[in-house]
Amino acid sequence: MRIALIQMMVAENKQENIRRACAKIREAQGIDLAVLPEMFCCPYDNARFRAYGEPDGGETQTALSALAAELGIYLVGGSLPELDGDRVYNTCYVFGRHGERLAKHRKAHLFDIDIPGGQRFMESETLSPGGAVTTFETELGTMGVCICFDLRFEELARCMCLRGARCIFVPAAFNGTTGPAHWELLFRQRAVDNQCFTIGVSPARDERASYVAYGNSIAADPWGNVLCRAGAEESTQFATLDFDRLEAVRQQLPILSARRTDLYELRERVPTKPPAVRTFAAIYDLVRQIPAGKVMTYSQIARLIGMPNYAVAVGNAMAACRDASVPCHRVVDRNGGTKAAFDTYGPRTQQAWLETEGVVFRPDGTVDLTASQWNP
Amino acid sequence: MRIALIQMMVAENKQENIRRACAKIREAQGIDLAVLPEMFCCPYDNARFRAYGEPDGGETQTALSALAAELGIYLVGGSLPELDGDRVYNTCYVFGRHGERLAKHRKAHLFDIDIPGGQRFMESETLSPGGAVTTFETELGTMGVCICFDLRFEELARCMCLRGARCIFVPAAFNGTTGPAHWELLFRQRAVDNQCFTIGVSPARDERASYVAYGNSIAADPWGNVLCRAGAEESTQFATLDFDRLEAVRQQLPILSARRTDLYELRERVPTKPPAVRTFAAIYDLVRQIPAGKVMTYSQIARLIGMPNYAVAVGNAMAACRDASVPCHRVVDRNGGTKAAFDTYGPRTQQAWLETEGVVFRPDGTVDLTASQWNP
Repeated sequence: MRIALIQMMVAENKQENIRRACAKIREAQGIDLAVLPEMFCCPYDNARFRAYGEPDGGETQTALSALAAELGIYLVGGSLPELDGDRVYNTCYVFGRHGERLAKHRKAHLFDIDIPGGQRFMESETLSPGGAVTTFETELGTMGVCICFDLRFEELARCMCLRGARCIFVPAAFNGTTGPAHWELLFRQRAVDNQCFTIGVSPARDERASYVAYGNSIAADPWGNVLCRAGAEESTQFATLDFDRLEAVRQQLPILSARRTDLYELRERVPTKPPAVRTFAAIYDLVRQIPAGKVMTYSQIARLIGMPNYAVAVGNAMAACRDASVPCHRVVDRNGGTKAAFDTYGPRTQQAWLETEGVVFRPDGTVDLTASQWNP
Repeated sequence: MRIALIQMMVAENKQENIRRACAKIREAQGIDLAVLPEMFCCPYDNARFRAYGEPDGGETQTALSALAAELGIYLVGGSLPELDGDRVYNTCYVFGRHGERLAKHRKAHLFDIDIPGGQRFMESETLSPGGAVTTFETELGTMGVCICFDLRFEELARCMCLRGARCIFVPAAFNGTTGPAHWELLFRQRAVDNQCFTIGVSPARDERASYVAYGNSIAADPWGNVLCRAGAEESTQFATLDFDRLEAVRQQLPILSARRTDLYELRERVPTKPPAVRTFAAIYDLVRQIPAGKVMTYSQIARLIGMPNYAVAVGNAMAACRDASVPCHRVVDRNGGTKAAFDTYGPRTQQAWLETEGVVFRPDGTVDLTASQWNP
């Protein structure tokens, strides 16, 4: 999988930023995936986020989605200020080869610091934090995405990799203090710890900006080697992710497989607030974009639709819907009405059953009930 | 806290190794704590471990305990092959300023690799794995200890630091492949991730040995700076652990305090096998070594006595005993008979109550029931 890391200068003009990002991606020939920097279309300044923001489906997303479809590539769209009601999130949208939205990650760890008489920077005064671990599916496996300060928290990266992530994409903007001290170290060690690839993409350094980004966009492999690294200036770096190499490292140095889960347990928690309610039509649109004949597990489908607690498979006129917090399996119709409920599986059995389950899709995106294994 | 890292050559003769280790520690003037290498008294060779091994209380431990008391220092005694029935463990013993045993850590992650047609090294064919996260208390706070490959597993280090560890001591022996690739990276990033000090102490490199250790004993600070680092040859390195610096880093860059525990949860698991049963007299002996007037929480006492699920405070003729897995609080007499049981605390309330609880000790090691807050 050939990746382009688009380290670009961020200008004042939003449309100009979008146009330059798209032009740079077009220039990167023969790639499977492109990654843009954190806040690539907006100066990194708490005071500007709301003015440069856009809701779900806004102009930046439309442009990136169209470009992904045009070039037939995956596009990890850096991040932008997402407006949702009164709230602003630092959000990364990921698009697939057909321009479909594969994932949306809201920066979950906001950088708040308030030293009496010293530095004060409260990201949470402007931004709201996300509430999910984010991964997405490609034909080369599961991938993870997080934003900048998120990568500081080892649990988040580990959760992605326990879901199966083979690469973690990180739009980011370290600064002149944290960059030289921790940037390379962090990307290399997360890669070594999780035996995965890590990709960090920063804006180019602009000494006139209110926040001066470190640059140094980087790719590290599962052994901790640096595959490519930019300087401070604008540049497009390339890296090839060799997943055979990943498997070889995991076999040679057993870390992920040798964890003592009898001594410690890391688990994702279900957010206390339920995920945003989606219409059945919106879910159906997402599921229909799955290629025909594709076999997916419930948890993969749950991630695809961005509702980690629900696995929904769309049938002719119904969906199989699971709420992980309830030991119950339901088949619901388009209106959400329960057609049937199965609660004969204990939590453990159900878990095992769901993990191994395959849902087979028809060319039109509906589910082949005969071929699928999910219908008890 | 001034630390000596004793990077020594390991010879064939066990008694010679012990004598040289003690001599090198004596030479290190003005220290509070010394750290020896992994398997400092035994060639690092699966075939030798049993012959060089000793049970609890063996000659190596006796020598280290006596030296710690003589010099009035803490001593993280590298590791040695511990014999326990048919089993051999790779074990680190830690001694306090009075020669008392503060902790015992058995290497929990064994290095097993078996590539068809390639490298094969199965540590588990000879050694048994430990079953606990290990920390110990000093007058400068909680400290953590693990052995070599253990440090590869981020959860173990995180568990120590969530217990409050401010430094992680790691007797270790990387090799000529993993050393150059990962040694410094690992010690620096564990320090940055957990905002603590990390200390790695290796045997000196011996090209004639069957396993050639990397050397490069190292100390890293909470910002990821390298405080000292040895070469391959025998040398004693020194580092000063400035815990004010640790607090400053934790305030400047909030990582430990900014974890999103609503999104992920890391918890220690109670080993499936119960801890070894200790006689009340043995527990009493350990608790009596606590300095007079010392205030300890239940969890600190539990760690002191090496029974993570039990908090025992010794009174004139009784002890308060808690089993964390049962929402019940008991006061038992010297024979283990229950004098009183309190189960009116819900698990959450009990947890909060125990975490904040202070047990005050008398000069003779018994509990001052009047001053202590634990008697409901």
